[in-house]
Amino acid sequence: MHQAFLRRAVELACENIESGGGPFGALIVKDGEIIAASGNRVTPDLDPTAHAEVSAIRLACQKLGDFQLTECTLYTSCEPCPMCLGAIYWARLKAVYFACNRFDAGKAGFDDSFIYTEIDKPTDQRQIAMRQLILDTATRPFDVWQRKIDKIRY
Amino acid sequence: MHQAFLRRAVELACENIESGGGPFGALIVKDGEIIAASGNRVTPDLDPTAHAEVSAIRLACQKLGDFQLTECTLYTSCEPCPMCLGAIYWARLKAVYFACNRFDAGKAGFDDSFIYTEIDKPTDQRQIAMRQLILDTATRPFDVWQRKIDKIRY
Repeated sequence: MHQAFLRRAVELACENIESGGGPFGALIVKDGEIIAASGNRVTPDLDPTAHAEVSAIRLACQKLGDFQLTECTLYTSCEPCPMCLGAIYWARLKAVYFACNRFDAGKAGFDDSFIYTEIDKPTDQRQIAMRQLILDTATRPFDVWQRKIDKIRY
Repeated sequence: MHQAFLRRAVELACENIESGGGPFGALIVKDGEIIAASGNRVTPDLDPTAHAEVSAIRLACQKLGDFQLTECTLYTSCEPCPMCLGAIYWARLKAVYFACNRFDAGKAGFDDSFIYTEIDKPTDQRQIAMRQLILDTATRPFDVWQRKIDKIRY
Protein backbone atom coordinates (compact mmCIF):
# COMPACT_ATOMS: atom_id res chain seq x y z
CA MET A 1 0.00 0.00 0.00
CA HIS A 2 2.82 2.43 0.89
CA GLN A 3 4.48 1.54 -2.43
CA ALA A 4 1.29 2.28 -4.38
CA PHE A 5 0.74 5.70 -2.79
CA LEU A 6 4.40 6.58 -3.29
CA ARG A 7 4.23 5.49 -6.92
CA ARG A 8 1.27 7.86 -7.36
CA ALA A 9 3.31 10.74 -5.84
CA VAL A 10 6.05 10.07 -8.41
CA GLU A 11 3.51 10.05 -11.26
CA LEU A 12 2.16 13.34 -9.94
CA ALA A 13 5.69 14.79 -10.09
CA CYS A 14 5.94 13.83 -13.77
CA GLU A 15 2.50 15.25 -14.58
CA ASN A 16 3.36 18.45 -12.71
CA ILE A 17 6.25 19.22 -15.06
CA GLU A 18 3.82 19.20 -17.97
CA SER A 19 1.58 21.71 -16.18
CA GLY A 20 4.46 24.13 -15.65
CA GLY A 21 5.71 23.17 -12.18
CA GLY A 22 8.86 21.55 -10.82
CA PRO A 23 9.63 17.79 -10.80
CA PHE A 24 8.11 17.00 -7.40
CA GLY A 25 4.81 15.57 -6.21
CA ALA A 26 3.30 14.80 -2.80
CA LEU A 27 0.08 13.43 -1.40
CA ILE A 28 -1.47 13.02 2.01
CA VAL A 29 -3.36 9.94 3.08
CA LYS A 30 -5.78 9.53 5.98
CA ASP A 31 -7.51 6.22 6.76
CA GLY A 32 -6.28 4.72 3.49
CA GLU A 33 -7.67 7.56 1.37
CA ILE A 34 -5.86 10.36 -0.49
CA ILE A 35 -7.17 13.62 0.99
CA ALA A 36 -4.78 16.07 -0.71
CA ALA A 37 -2.24 16.06 -3.53
CA SER A 38 -0.02 18.66 -5.14
CA GLY A 39 2.92 19.15 -7.40
CA ASN A 40 5.59 21.80 -6.84
CA ARG A 41 3.95 25.14 -7.78
CA VAL A 42 6.83 27.57 -7.13
CA THR A 43 7.08 29.13 -10.58
CA PRO A 44 3.42 28.99 -11.74
CA ASP A 45 2.15 30.42 -8.43
CA LEU A 46 5.10 32.79 -7.87
CA ASP A 47 5.54 31.30 -4.41
CA PRO A 48 8.96 29.96 -3.33
CA THR A 49 7.27 28.12 -0.44
CA ALA A 50 4.91 26.17 -2.73
CA HIS A 51 6.91 22.94 -2.65
CA ALA A 52 4.77 19.84 -3.23
CA GLU A 53 4.86 18.87 0.46
CA VAL A 54 3.97 22.35 1.78
CA SER A 55 1.18 22.69 -0.78
CA ALA A 56 -0.24 19.24 0.05
CA ILE A 57 -0.11 20.01 3.78
CA ARG A 58 -1.95 23.30 3.26
CA LEU A 59 -4.61 21.60 1.14
CA ALA A 60 -5.09 18.75 3.63
CA CYS A 61 -5.51 21.19 6.52
CA GLN A 62 -8.15 23.13 4.59
CA LYS A 63 -9.94 19.88 3.79
CA LEU A 64 -9.92 18.66 7.41
CA GLY A 65 -10.51 22.10 8.94
CA ASP A 66 -7.55 21.62 11.25
CA PHE A 67 -4.05 23.05 11.59
CA GLN A 68 -2.62 19.64 12.48
CA LEU A 69 -2.49 16.36 10.59
CA THR A 70 -1.73 13.88 13.36
CA GLU A 71 -3.59 10.98 11.72
CA CYS A 72 -2.11 11.53 8.27
CA THR A 73 0.81 10.14 6.28
CA LEU A 74 2.77 12.04 3.63
CA TYR A 75 4.07 10.38 0.46
CA THR A 76 6.52 12.49 -1.52
CA SER A 77 8.50 11.86 -4.68
CA CYS A 78 11.67 13.19 -3.03
CA GLU A 79 13.12 13.49 0.47
CA PRO A 80 11.74 16.71 2.00
CA CYS A 81 14.02 19.77 1.99
CA PRO A 82 14.58 21.53 5.36
CA MET A 83 11.62 23.86 4.73
CA CYS A 84 9.28 20.93 4.11
CA LEU A 85 10.78 18.99 7.00
CA GLY A 86 9.92 21.87 9.29
CA ALA A 87 6.39 21.99 7.85
CA ILE A 88 6.02 18.24 8.51
CA TYR A 89 6.92 18.72 12.18
CA TRP A 90 4.61 21.71 12.62
CA ALA A 91 1.75 19.77 10.96
CA ARG A 92 2.61 16.81 13.23
CA LEU A 93 2.22 14.21 10.50
CA LYS A 94 2.34 10.56 11.55
CA ALA A 95 4.88 9.30 9.02
CA VAL A 96 6.63 10.21 5.77
CA TYR A 97 7.63 8.01 2.82
CA PHE A 98 9.86 9.26 0.00
CA ALA A 99 11.27 7.87 -3.26
CA CYS A 100 14.37 9.92 -4.25
CA ASN A 101 16.73 11.36 -1.66
CA ARG A 102 18.43 14.75 -1.25
CA PHE A 103 21.46 13.62 -3.27
CA ASP A 104 19.31 12.65 -6.26
CA ALA A 105 17.73 16.12 -5.97
CA GLY A 106 21.18 17.72 -5.86
CA LYS A 107 22.24 15.93 -9.05
CA ALA A 108 19.13 17.33 -10.75
CA GLY A 109 20.09 20.88 -9.72
CA PHE A 110 18.06 21.35 -6.51
CA ASP A 111 20.12 22.64 -3.61
CA ASP A 112 18.59 20.73 -0.70
CA SER A 113 21.97 19.52 0.60
CA PHE A 114 23.26 23.08 0.55
CA ILE A 115 20.46 24.24 2.86
CA TYR A 116 20.99 21.25 5.18
CA THR A 117 24.64 22.36 5.49
CA GLU A 118 23.75 26.01 6.06
CA ILE A 119 21.32 25.21 8.89
CA ASP A 120 24.14 23.83 11.06
CA LYS A 121 26.27 26.95 10.73
CA PRO A 122 26.18 29.73 13.34
CA THR A 123 23.74 32.38 12.10
CA ASP A 124 26.47 34.95 11.39
CA GLN A 125 28.47 32.53 9.21
CA ARG A 126 25.71 31.64 6.78
CA GLN A 127 25.69 32.66 3.14
CA ILE A 128 22.53 34.64 3.80
CA ALA A 129 23.58 36.94 6.61
CA MET A 130 21.38 36.50 9.69
CA ARG A 131 21.89 38.88 12.56
CA GLN A 132 20.27 39.24 15.96
CA LEU A 133 19.82 42.86 17.02
CA ILE A 134 19.23 43.71 20.67
CA LEU A 135 15.88 45.42 21.29
CA ASP A 136 14.41 46.28 24.68
CA THR A 137 11.01 45.08 23.40
CA ALA A 138 12.29 41.76 21.98
CA THR A 139 10.47 39.37 24.34
CA ARG A 140 7.32 41.48 24.72
CA PRO A 141 5.30 39.28 22.26
CA PHE A 142 6.01 36.19 24.39
CA ASP A 143 5.05 38.11 27.57
CA VAL A 144 1.73 39.15 25.98
CA TRP A 145 1.20 35.58 24.72
CA GLN A 146 1.79 34.03 28.13
CA ARG A 147 -0.65 36.43 29.79
CA LYS A 148 -3.39 35.77 27.22
CA ILE A 149 -6.00 33.44 28.69
CA ASP A 150 -8.10 32.46 25.65
CA LYS A 151 -5.22 31.68 23.28
CA ILE A 152 -5.26 28.73 20.87
CA ARG A 153 -2.03 26.78 21.40
CA TYR A 154 -0.36 25.19 18.41
CA MET B 1 17.15 51.84 10.18
CA HIS B 2 17.51 48.08 10.79
CA GLN B 3 16.51 48.67 14.42
CA ALA B 4 13.39 50.62 13.41
CA PHE B 5 12.16 47.95 10.99
CA LEU B 6 12.86 45.22 13.53
CA ARG B 7 11.01 47.16 16.21
CA ARG B 8 8.01 47.31 13.85
CA ALA B 9 8.17 43.50 13.37
CA VAL B 10 8.02 43.07 17.16
CA GLU B 11 5.04 45.45 17.41
CA LEU B 12 3.35 43.43 14.66
CA ALA B 13 3.88 40.26 16.71
CA CYS B 14 2.10 41.85 19.69
CA GLU B 15 -0.78 43.12 17.51
CA ASN B 16 -1.08 39.70 15.90
CA ILE B 17 -1.89 38.03 19.23
CA GLU B 18 -4.88 40.34 19.59
CA SER B 19 -6.16 39.32 16.15
CA GLY B 20 -6.03 35.62 17.02
CA GLY B 21 -2.58 34.61 15.78
CA GLY B 22 0.67 33.52 17.42
CA PRO B 23 3.29 35.84 18.99
CA PHE B 24 5.40 36.38 15.89
CA GLY B 25 5.65 39.11 13.25
CA ALA B 26 7.75 39.63 10.13
CA LEU B 27 8.15 42.20 7.40
CA ILE B 28 10.03 42.46 4.14
CA VAL B 29 11.79 45.61 2.99
CA LYS B 30 12.96 46.56 -0.48
CA ASP B 31 14.73 49.84 -1.24
CA GLY B 32 13.96 51.14 2.25
CA GLU B 33 10.23 50.47 1.96
CA ILE B 34 8.07 47.82 3.65
CA ILE B 35 6.53 45.76 0.83
CA ALA B 36 4.93 42.97 2.90
CA ALA B 37 4.14 42.26 6.55
CA SER B 38 2.43 39.44 8.41
CA GLY B 39 1.88 37.93 11.79
CA ASN B 40 1.78 34.18 12.42
CA ARG B 41 -1.58 32.98 11.03
CA VAL B 42 -1.38 29.23 11.81
CA THR B 43 -4.52 28.91 13.91
CA PRO B 44 -6.80 31.55 12.30
CA ASP B 45 -5.97 30.32 8.76
CA LEU B 46 -5.76 26.59 9.69
CA ASP B 47 -2.35 26.47 8.03
CA PRO B 48 0.66 25.09 9.97
CA THR B 49 2.99 26.66 7.38
CA ALA B 50 1.61 30.19 7.93
CA HIS B 51 4.47 31.36 10.13
CA ALA B 52 5.04 35.11 9.98
CA GLU B 53 8.15 34.74 7.78
CA VAL B 54 6.56 32.31 5.29
CA SER B 55 3.43 34.48 5.06
CA ALA B 56 5.46 37.67 4.54
CA ILE B 57 7.57 35.96 1.85
CA ARG B 58 4.45 34.76 0.05
CA LEU B 59 2.90 38.24 0.17
CA ALA B 60 6.09 39.94 -1.03
CA CYS B 61 6.37 37.56 -3.99
CA GLN B 62 2.78 38.26 -5.00
CA LYS B 63 3.44 41.99 -4.73
CA LEU B 64 6.61 41.87 -6.85
CA GLY B 65 5.29 39.22 -9.26
CA ASP B 66 8.42 37.12 -8.73
CA PHE B 67 9.28 33.85 -7.00
CA GLN B 68 12.55 35.25 -5.68
CA LEU B 69 13.32 38.18 -3.37
CA THR B 70 17.02 38.76 -4.07
CA GLU B 71 16.86 42.52 -3.37
CA CYS B 72 14.86 42.19 -0.17
CA THR B 73 15.62 42.02 3.56
CA LEU B 74 13.52 40.18 6.15
CA TYR B 75 12.95 41.52 9.66
CA THR B 76 11.40 39.04 12.06
CA SER B 77 10.49 39.22 15.74
CA CYS B 78 12.16 35.84 16.36
CA GLU B 79 14.95 33.74 14.84
CA PRO B 80 13.44 31.74 11.96
CA CYS B 81 12.58 28.09 12.62
CA PRO B 82 14.00 25.49 10.19
CA MET B 83 10.90 25.74 7.97
CA CYS B 84 11.24 29.50 7.67
CA LEU B 85 15.01 29.21 7.25
CA GLY B 86 14.43 26.94 4.28
CA ALA B 87 11.87 29.39 2.87
CA ILE B 88 14.43 32.21 3.23
CA TYR B 89 16.99 30.27 1.17
CA TRP B 90 14.48 29.32 -1.52
CA ALA B 91 13.32 32.97 -1.74
CA ARG B 92 17.01 34.01 -1.88
CA LEU B 93 16.58 36.96 0.46
CA LYS B 94 19.56 39.30 0.86
CA ALA B 95 19.68 39.42 4.66
CA VAL B 96 17.71 38.61 7.80
CA TYR B 97 17.48 40.49 11.11
CA PHE B 98 15.80 39.00 14.16
CA ALA B 99 15.06 40.10 17.76
CA CYS B 100 14.48 36.98 19.92
CA ASN B 101 16.36 33.75 19.31
CA ARG B 102 15.30 30.08 19.22
CA PHE B 103 15.94 29.65 22.96
CA ASP B 104 13.60 32.52 23.85
CA ALA B 105 11.00 30.81 21.60
CA GLY B 106 11.59 27.50 23.38
CA LYS B 107 11.00 29.10 26.79
CA ALA B 108 7.65 30.43 25.47
CA GLY B 109 6.63 26.90 24.39
CA PHE B 110 7.62 26.89 20.70
CA ASP B 111 9.68 23.85 19.75
CA ASP B 112 12.12 25.37 17.25
CA SER B 113 15.17 23.86 18.97
CA PHE B 114 13.55 20.44 18.86
CA ILE B 115 13.19 20.62 15.07
CA TYR B 116 16.78 21.87 14.68
CA THR B 117 17.89 18.76 16.59
CA GLU B 118 15.68 16.41 14.57
CA ILE B 119 17.03 17.67 11.24
CA ASP B 120 20.52 16.39 12.03
CA LYS B 121 19.34 12.86 12.80
CA PRO B 122 19.35 10.12 10.17
CA THR B 123 15.86 9.99 8.62
CA ASP B 124 15.01 6.64 10.21
CA GLN B 125 15.86 7.83 13.73
CA ARG B 126 13.60 10.86 13.78
CA GLN B 127 10.53 11.13 16.00
CA ILE B 128 8.41 11.40 12.87
CA ALA B 129 9.35 8.24 10.98
CA MET B 130 10.74 9.02 7.52
CA ARG B 131 11.47 6.14 5.24
CA GLN B 132 12.84 5.87 1.72
CA LEU B 133 11.14 3.14 -0.35
CA ILE B 134 12.84 1.82 -3.46
CA LEU B 135 10.77 2.39 -6.62
CA ASP B 136 11.88 1.67 -10.18
CA THR B 137 10.29 5.00 -11.23
CA ALA B 138 11.91 7.09 -8.47
CA THR B 139 14.16 9.29 -10.62
CA ARG B 140 11.80 9.53 -13.60
CA PRO B 141 10.61 13.06 -12.65
CA PHE B 142 14.22 14.32 -12.76
CA ASP B 143 14.78 12.59 -16.12
CA VAL B 144 11.66 14.26 -17.55
CA TRP B 145 12.76 17.59 -16.04
CA GLN B 146 16.23 17.43 -17.54
CA ARG B 147 14.87 16.65 -20.99
CA LYS B 148 12.35 19.52 -20.88
CA ILE B 149 13.65 22.42 -22.99
CA ASP B 150 11.31 25.28 -22.04
CA LYS B 151 11.41 24.80 -18.26
CA ILE B 152 11.56 27.69 -15.81
CA ARG B 153 14.46 27.03 -13.43
CA TYR B 154 14.12 28.09 -9.81
